[in-house]
Amino acid sequence: MNHADIQEILRLHARGELTTDQATERIKHLSFEDIGYARVDHARASRQGFPEVIFGQGKTREQILGIFEKLIQRSPNVLITRTTDEVFGDIRNILTDAEWHESAKVIRVLRDKTELGMGEICVVTAGTSDIPVAEEAALTAEAMGNRVKRVWDAGVAGIHRLLAEREVLQDARVVVVVAGMEGALPSVVGGLVGVPVIAVPTSIGYGASFGGIAALLGMLNSCASNVTVVNIDNGFGAGFVASLINRTR
Amino acid sequence: MNHADIQEILRLHARGELTTDQATERIKHLSFEDIGYARVDHARASRQGFPEVIFGQGKTREQILGIFEKLIQRSPNVLITRTTDEVFGDIRNILTDAEWHESAKVIRVLRDKTELGMGEICVVTAGTSDIPVAEEAALTAEAMGNRVKRVWDAGVAGIHRLLAEREVLQDARVVVVVAGMEGALPSVVGGLVGVPVIAVPTSIGYGASFGGIAALLGMLNSCASNVTVVNIDNGFGAGFVASLINRTR
Amino acid sequence: MNHADIQEILRLHARGELTTDQATERIKHLSFEDIGYARVDHARASRQGFPEVIFGQGKTREQILGIFEKLIQRSPNVLITRTTDEVFGDIRNILTDAEWHESAKVIRVLRDKTELGMGEICVVTAGTSDIPVAEEAALTAEAMGNRVKRVWDAGVAGIHRLLAEREVLQDARVVVVVAGMEGALPSVVGGLVGVPVIAVPTSIGYGASFGGIAALLGMLNSCASNVTVVNIDNGFGAGFVASLINRTR
Amino acid sequence: MNHADIQEILRLHARGELTTDQATERIKHLSFEDIGYARVDHARASRQGFPEVIFGQGKTREQILGIFEKLIQRSPNVLITRTTDEVFGDIRNILTDAEWHESAKVIRVLRDKTELGMGEICVVTAGTSDIPVAEEAALTAEAMGNRVKRVWDAGVAGIHRLLAEREVLQDARVVVVVAGMEGALPSVVGGLVGVPVIAVPTSIGYGASFGGIAALLGMLNSCASNVTVVNIDNGFGAGFVASLINRTR
Amino acid sequence: MNHADIQEILRLHARGELTTDQATERIKHLSFEDIGYARVDHARASRQGFPEVIFGQGKTREQILGIFEKLIQRSPNVLITRTTDEVFGDIRNILTDAEWHESAKVIRVLRDKTELGMGEICVVTAGTSDIPVAEEAALTAEAMGNRVKRVWDAGVAGIHRLLAEREVLQDARVVVVVAGMEGALPSVVGGLVGVPVIAVPTSIGYGASFGGIAALLGMLNSCASNVTVVNIDNGFGAGFVASLINRTR
Amino acid sequence: MNHADIQEILRLHARGELTTDQATERIKHLSFEDIGYARVDHARASRQGFPEVIFGQGKTREQILGIFEKLIQRSPNVLITRTTDEVFGDIRNILTDAEWHESAKVIRVLRDKTELGMGEICVVTAGTSDIPVAEEAALTAEAMGNRVKRVWDAGVAGIHRLLAEREVLQDARVVVVVAGMEGALPSVVGGLVGVPVIAVPTSIGYGASFGGIAALLGMLNSCASNVTVVNIDNGFGAGFVASLINRTR
Amino acid sequence: MNHADIQEILRLHARGELTTDQATERIKHLSFEDIGYARVDHARASRQGFPEVIFGQGKTREQILGIFEKLIQRSPNVLITRTTDEVFGDIRNILTDAEWHESAKVIRVLRDKTELGMGEICVVTAGTSDIPVAEEAALTAEAMGNRVKRVWDAGVAGIHRLLAEREVLQDARVVVVVAGMEGALPSVVGGLVGVPVIAVPTSIGYGASFGGIAALLGMLNSCASNVTVVNIDNGFGAGFVASLINRTR
Amino acid sequence: MNHADIQEILRLHARGELTTDQATERIKHLSFEDIGYARVDHARASRQGFPEVIFGQGKTREQILGIFEKLIQRSPNVLITRTTDEVFGDIRNILTDAEWHESAKVIRVLRDKTELGMGEICVVTAGTSDIPVAEEAALTAEAMGNRVKRVWDAGVAGIHRLLAEREVLQDARVVVVVAGMEGALPSVVGGLVGVPVIAVPTSIGYGASFGGIAALLGMLNSCASNVTVVNIDNGFGAGFVASLINRTR
Repeated sequence: MNHADIQEILRLHARGELTTDQATERIKHLSFEDIGYARVDHARASRQGFPEVIFGQGKTREQILGIFEKLIQRSPNVLITRTTDEVFGDIRNILTDAEWHESAKVIRVLRDKTELGMGEICVVTAGTSDIPVAEEAALTAEAMGNRVKRVWDAGVAGIHRLLAEREVLQDARVVVVVAGMEGALPSVVGGLVGVPVIAVPTSIGYGASFGGIAALLGMLNSCASNVTVVNIDNGFGAGFVASLINRTR
Repeated sequence: MNHADIQEILRLHARGELTTDQATERIKHLSFEDIGYARVDHARASRQGFPEVIFGQGKTREQILGIFEKLIQRSPNVLITRTTDEVFGDIRNILTDAEWHESAKVIRVLRDKTELGMGEICVVTAGTSDIPVAEEAALTAEAMGNRVKRVWDAGVAGIHRLLAEREVLQDARVVVVVAGMEGALPSVVGGLVGVPVIAVPTSIGYGASFGGIAALLGMLNSCASNVTVVNIDNGFGAGFVASLINRTR
Repeated sequence: MNHADIQEILRLHARGELTTDQATERIKHLSFEDIGYARVDHARASRQGFPEVIFGQGKTREQILGIFEKLIQRSPNVLITRTTDEVFGDIRNILTDAEWHESAKVIRVLRDKTELGMGEICVVTAGTSDIPVAEEAALTAEAMGNRVKRVWDAGVAGIHRLLAEREVLQDARVVVVVAGMEGALPSVVGGLVGVPVIAVPTSIGYGASFGGIAALLGMLNSCASNVTVVNIDNGFGAGFVASLINRTR
Repeated sequence: MNHADIQEILRLHARGELTTDQATERIKHLSFEDIGYARVDHARASRQGFPEVIFGQGKTREQILGIFEKLIQRSPNVLITRTTDEVFGDIRNILTDAEWHESAKVIRVLRDKTELGMGEICVVTAGTSDIPVAEEAALTAEAMGNRVKRVWDAGVAGIHRLLAEREVLQDARVVVVVAGMEGALPSVVGGLVGVPVIAVPTSIGYGASFGGIAALLGMLNSCASNVTVVNIDNGFGAGFVASLINRTR
Repeated sequence: MNHADIQEILRLHARGELTTDQATERIKHLSFEDIGYARVDHARASRQGFPEVIFGQGKTREQILGIFEKLIQRSPNVLITRTTDEVFGDIRNILTDAEWHESAKVIRVLRDKTELGMGEICVVTAGTSDIPVAEEAALTAEAMGNRVKRVWDAGVAGIHRLLAEREVLQDARVVVVVAGMEGALPSVVGGLVGVPVIAVPTSIGYGASFGGIAALLGMLNSCASNVTVVNIDNGFGAGFVASLINRTR
Repeated sequence: MNHADIQEILRLHARGELTTDQATERIKHLSFEDIGYARVDHARASRQGFPEVIFGQGKTREQILGIFEKLIQRSPNVLITRTTDEVFGDIRNILTDAEWHESAKVIRVLRDKTELGMGEICVVTAGTSDIPVAEEAALTAEAMGNRVKRVWDAGVAGIHRLLAEREVLQDARVVVVVAGMEGALPSVVGGLVGVPVIAVPTSIGYGASFGGIAALLGMLNSCASNVTVVNIDNGFGAGFVASLINRTR
Repeated sequence: MNHADIQEILRLHARGELTTDQATERIKHLSFEDIGYARVDHARASRQGFPEVIFGQGKTREQILGIFEKLIQRSPNVLITRTTDEVFGDIRNILTDAEWHESAKVIRVLRDKTELGMGEICVVTAGTSDIPVAEEAALTAEAMGNRVKRVWDAGVAGIHRLLAEREVLQDARVVVVVAGMEGALPSVVGGLVGVPVIAVPTSIGYGASFGGIAALLGMLNSCASNVTVVNIDNGFGAGFVASLINRTR
Repeated sequence: MNHADIQEILRLHARGELTTDQATERIKHLSFEDIGYARVDHARASRQGFPEVIFGQGKTREQILGIFEKLIQRSPNVLITRTTDEVFGDIRNILTDAEWHESAKVIRVLRDKTELGMGEICVVTAGTSDIPVAEEAALTAEAMGNRVKRVWDAGVAGIHRLLAEREVLQDARVVVVVAGMEGALPSVVGGLVGVPVIAVPTSIGYGASFGGIAALLGMLNSCASNVTVVNIDNGFGAGFVASLINRTR
């Protein structure tokens, strides 16, 4: 809920141009809009400093479209994550400047490109197969006004590949590390840098990786003190928090 | 490894006052010191922006003391976590200004109190039993140059107790939320603030809390996008990362 | 087994119009009917105060139809849960007033609409993706003679969306809360109301939600004392128990 | 928060006997009282229809006493669960009519004995070792104004022992079933009665009972539709919800 | 390895009609036959008192046929479990008297029908969906020379359905109980009979049944002392052991 | 419930020497006796063919004694498992011929030594540390009228130690195999004999043995078809079922 | 990084034929080559004594081809594991002497067949279904210059089938044992030989095998001291380590 | 069983100095000796190339002594692992040259110090708390005739501490890596060396380390191909296999 919007309503009410009931209704509407299957949350932008994101998984095509139409009226930038190219077809009909990122399965509308970060965000992957999750993080961070540096396939079993990027890592304000299998990379990166490291376990692996549990546990038990963790495959969350850290308040 | 220290050694070597072997040895010593059972890491301070911490659990009393003696020579501030009052007795003999924090089981030497943060760190607990872990986070953040605001016992089943602190929460640059049982508090706090929230699951609970697993899973699956998670009962890690986020680079 | 039915048989037997063997056989038949692959249980209605439900999953199309034909002869209301539109096609051929609820995958025959509850049942979901499970609960409660109030998409990360429904919640005799991911909603609702809350974890989520385990554990560990839990995705069970609670005895 | 209390404050304020600040402070105090390590919640009684309970586990003796002293000033009935006879000694010094229930480890103050339930609550155990948890449920239900019927040691491997109590079970308005090991009893009881069954898994068992997980899973998967479940060993919660169900609104 | 076969070889060798090498080779062949991808085990029949069974899952169609052709030369009765109707088509081409059991996914060749058991084996299921696993057990037991009594859909939530079969249960020499969900049935049956009960958990259920784990744990923790357990869905194993128990030695 | 006992009561009732109420009461008493904390089950002996056993764990010393006193009046043989030498002291005061088996923690009263088995029961352990559980099985089987052969420390990593006992194994009517760690022994024994093998996992091991889970899973997945499994450390259950198998009906 | 290659660059640099920058670039290139989605690691060959392997799972067809083209320029032998026959079609277009191993899903280029091992590697499976994983191990070991002996279908439930191969096992320098279900085979083999045994659990089994967890735990808890374990289905890793052990340094 | 020993018995038998029964008995005795609670295995030395080890955990003091007395008669070197200083007191009374290693809880008799390895074994730990397990590995390897290099406290979060030991690592014939928490060290070491790496997870850590599971899973999922794994805390096994690898055949 935007301060100016509320003050305007209060002024109108004080001048008698709105009844108390009308003012109440408008204020409630500023906060969220009930469209039956969803309560579209206009307050979140000001509350969390970011335009709305639609988490596509588990929603029908119709539901995603319905929510998108409400959001795009008020917010310049919108992300739809975990979605499909069918949904992108629908979105494209509504808004021609929407982008489709195949590997990350992300639809992005990016109309406000103001830079908001105080430094650079570096996103690193352990392997080639971790790239889709890392892209989700990078696309999110860019959409929130950050410069992003991508370092792909720098896993710990060939430590020289990582050490070759030491400078890039040490220049970042925050580092996102994406890794499956044993999830060891955040610990090594955490030791090389003096900034927060956000670790993203991926479901990449087989057998005793148990769909990302091995990587998740490895990251939670990291011996580097500057590591925090998000859910398995949650590239969006990592990019989001990295952006909040990088933002001057 | 401090830049100035290295340059001094290089100067001495260039002037012939140190042989190459002597210079090499000194440089290695700047980085870490091998005392048999441990490699005391002097590089970490500059690398991670913080004096050394000794993780007490699993180390003998002699080992903790030995490491402490090396560290205190070079670092004004030292933390010993997960330790006992017996160890504190030993430390007190060496250094009279060490503090003992009973509830958190932390020994703290705090000689450099320069303020380094750009804002305030808020530490919140869901219940009374979560306070020891939260104190570990708060003590760590203070030792790293931050102002800390404590909010205890504001769990979600009495949401009015939390909402009463909404202003305090919204003033913070980063919030640490400590909760056991179902671990729901970080999601609610995450929705109220626009800054990073670091969630610390605690082992508080019984039955199907499984020593903190329920809380940990709840936090990893948080529907609030600004939440990251550290290990169960890892108050230190949360305080450490919160400090890094709050620090102007 | 209906009291009147038994008394009638006993009367006939006492008057010698039924032999002991015939009476025994009739009494057994009152209780259940063996149709080979299933023992259709006519006793359950009087025993549990509700017409029969067929759990569709794991049964063949033929088995569901066979059981349905027996039940519909004695019971005005029948539910078939976890079924398909193919089965609905078959049922429609037998009984034209059967309803098909696509999102919940429920077939419902609702011929007796007597209101039996003392108050209202409120069904709440955390997100849009939880609606199918919540609908199963709502449809069940309606079929058992209750008025149902639906509140969709009121998750804890936007607590104002939930608080906006505080009155609706506080008017209910029992609340069913349906949530996936971290499953925090029942705790918050539990704190807002003074009636029983039935929590239904859903398999909605990804990564460390482990198909609903995270939500289940969160709910079992709820810090609100008025919360009980049913199996993951068990909307039917929640609606059933809510109806029993709401029923005047 | 009691309606009358608020109205009194408002009246005083309207008459100018309280400043706005004083009124605000008093209203906040009506809701909860911050005593440092805990926010004593006076609102909960009216919100959930029951005097406060102190969960003893994980709190120090001093903390329990401190909270108790605040609560006993406003609430006639208080429970302290998961506590020790040492704490009882302390409580006894403050209040001579406190009761100590050794097997359940419960301290109870029961000064208001008004009957509030519409029927009887029946508490059943599968074995002798489950009695402590069942007692916690029974003591809680009694403290909330209910008549309670206890049936101990009626496990399913000797089904005649249970069937012998069929009448008692069928007379209850709600049944609490407490069982460890395979946790099968709630399903059988659920089939015998037409009212809600609250299942409490206990940590009784060994080997693959995994501290109550086997019983918990058994209960969650119950084939009886009238069963809901609370946390392992959570007798208090079961007694609490049973009371809410039994209460006329 | 058949005693008579060995003695014949020894006799031939003693009379010089076989060299030592030839005799050795023949004896080895009596025991098993290496066909590359499998070691067909002719010794097992005499060792375990039963013709060979081919576990179909994880083997290619060619491998199953190859093994079958070796076995059918020496054994009158052969079972192929966890197989498909495609494989049955192939088998039918080789042997016209093979039977296909659709629900159990079993191919059976049953040429020796000698009755070998001392009593009757009773196979019971909790629900309709458990029938396929129970059929595997029943088909196996019949193929090993036993009379089998089937009791389907007698789960514990309608205990009168089970008690109606009390006599059948008490007449059996061994009872196989097949149940999914909470797996409570073996405990109840175990209490009703004085013979060994073999419990087979099935993967029937959803949510917290975890593919049969709930039922498995329930059965392992049975409070009835006469219950032993086999793997989830292992109808074959249950039928096999039941046959061994029923066999006069 | 003994047939003769019931017939006597019926006779007395028919002759008018007992009122209907008195007869009913006596019949109920034949079946079980309610002593408050336990329902002592006199029916079990006839129902399961064995005198009563008291599972000591989780019962107080007073409860064990109380139950024992009831049982010893009607049953010549009684076992108390998972008990202590303190309890044995109490029992010894009541009954001087009670035996104390230190390693198995079993108290045994063995006054009826009739041999009831048709063959011999062989109990095998993988290691020395598995002996206590195996002794519990052996003591139980002896108390149920069986000859028992003990084979200790014959684990699979020294297969020659097991093969040396091949004859003993092959002479048994049923084999109990007790093993911790990887639990591989039942599979090997199962392949050597043609009778039922009852596998008992033990909690012996460390690390990834997880208190017996590794052994339990190994046994449930045995590739030998004649293996069934009981709970971890459940020597009593294994001895009990082995006795039922060995018993001529 | 090959010694000779580095020395050549140094010589050129010393003679002034390469600038320092050019030399640096060439040296870096010797180590790895960044192709965007992957850092192709030329150093690994010399570092681990083996040509590169491409792990196919989770990589797109284009990525596999791109990496393959870089590797084949420098390495005579290349393996692509967990791949498809579609990829093989693509590879075949580039290099006609590539082999396709259907059962193991491996593409192999084997141009350097120098024998490098000091003895023979024996690969054993418990069952027919374990062959694909075992083939991956055998193909890898052959590609690393070893003679390999295959022993298929020698599981522990027919111990005579294994003992028949005792000589083959005892002749090997290292044994790879591949088993699913209970994973008991490595323990038995470990007891028969005096060399390292590498155990590979497979995901073969059903029910409580949990996709290989049962076998994995069995192997980790092996009572044979010469057993180490690799990930579930990791035939490649087992073949790789077996080759390193067999290699004369 | 030693070849020479057998041949001597055969010679004596052939010359008639031993009857067939006597010879048989002696041969059996060569292999193992039954002392009631254990089968002392004299064959293992020749079979696995190493003197006997007694695993102390779970054995009584008397059992350890009894086994030790048998072993020490035939084997120059004996290890007792997971034991106590009380047992050492007993052993010292029998044999004055036994060594007590407090940190590893190992008793060692080391009378034959022949060097048997072809290279050096390097044992590395991630932290100070991992030393006890690493010492068990090192003591074992020394007892089997190897030179051992110890590198303590070289965890991945300070990668420069590990890289400082690169030469030591690369000189070894086999490396044992001991690590708790996230278990990342074996992957990094695996990438630095071209020889087999044996990873030992330790139970060091807290919270989501789950007693070593996190480290175990990390190691099983290592992206370095030369890593195999032993059980949590199994230092002995790692030292044993490292010795077998290092041994010239």
